[in-house]
Amino acid sequence: MILCDIGNTSFHFFINKESKKYFMNEALPIFTEPIYYISVNLTALARLKETENILIDLEKYLVFPTEYKGLGLDRKLACLNAKNAVIIDAGSCIKVDLMQDGLHKGGFILPGLKKLHDLYPTISPVLNYDLNLKQDLDKIPLSTQEAISYGILKAIILPIKDFAKKKQIIITGGDAKELAGFFPKCIYNEYLIFNNMKGLINANNCIT
Amino acid sequence: MILCDIGNTSFHFFINKESKKYFMNEALPIFTEPIYYISVNLTALARLKETENILIDLEKYLVFPTEYKGLGLDRKLACLNAKNAVIIDAGSCIKVDLMQDGLHKGGFILPGLKKLHDLYPTISPVLNYDLNLKQDLDKIPLSTQEAISYGILKAIILPIKDFAKKKQIIITGGDAKELAGFFPKCIYNEYLIFNNMKGLINANNCIT
Repeated sequence: MILCDIGNTSFHFFINKESKKYFMNEALPIFTEPIYYISVNLTALARLKETENILIDLEKYLVFPTEYKGLGLDRKLACLNAKNAVIIDAGSCIKVDLMQDGLHKGGFILPGLKKLHDLYPTISPVLNYDLNLKQDLDKIPLSTQEAISYGILKAIILPIKDFAKKKQIIITGGDAKELAGFFPKCIYNEYLIFNNMKGLINANNCIT
Repeated sequence: MILCDIGNTSFHFFINKESKKYFMNEALPIFTEPIYYISVNLTALARLKETENILIDLEKYLVFPTEYKGLGLDRKLACLNAKNAVIIDAGSCIKVDLMQDGLHKGGFILPGLKKLHDLYPTISPVLNYDLNLKQDLDKIPLSTQEAISYGILKAIILPIKDFAKKKQIIITGGDAKELAGFFPKCIYNEYLIFNNMKGLINANNCIT
């Protein structure tokens, strides 16, 4: 089975139990099997449609009631099977959603870890420092590098903790591994979206 | 007296009791009086030096002991006369510093309100929405616009509240007015940097 989660910055494929990312400027592979996909990126989807691949859009199989206007397909899929949890998809932006009794209650969006870090040197060249993920957040920063790492991490961690309170956190996405350590007892699920895509395919018997 | 605070995005002049900003691409005025300046932007300073203005650098008059490595001149000036307070300078980046018993104890840096807002549509065109400063932060967002406004505001407000705890907050800078309402009992001082520049000039009798 071949799956593809088309995001803002990459085509994320799941090919025979292995995941592989193709960035927007890379040549895309051709498969003999169909590709089951979801997409939040129309331009990227148009590129995939230009290839000779057989494509199956999973959107039509996705039933996800919510009062939220404009909820992205990737967020719906990430939340699909959660009962009571806060679902975090930490990619180029960080999407944080609340599921309560199996119902989507809303959520919010932060810039992604790398996007936030890359923003500093665009404000001033003196703010060009590596991000230190091990920055001590209980200590007042005493250098520009510390001040930036502290600012980035607090700007991401505190809104999520404030939103989640004591609820179970489930985290996925490209930066999930880096961020998981800041949320004690959270569940890290690298393939949450792919797992839910598979679930959707099996439940709908839409395998060709 | 003519003062100039040269920042990352503008020359901020104080000319006869009125402030005026010149952006980087604008022609700079020529004065018969000298300009007392501080600068955190070498490129911009070089531009000012190309004019026929008489320039007096206030850096040499500034005595500001701190263990913090690389503290910007603007941050030193903002903190200069504070005894026990958290000083926020909310411009293209937001600098947050702690003064305790008249001593600088460190601080951190967040991206500015507008920079953070402008980052979203660079991640995805579907994230291009106006910032709603009146977004209800006690309610779970139910649309993409709400989700973005909530994310931006929480990412700025929560790290500052977490850092300041119950200490007095003094806020200045281009976005200070917009942000002041989120910090009950904070002191808004539009001209904190200019006031401290004047204090420095008077204390050092460096008026020509």
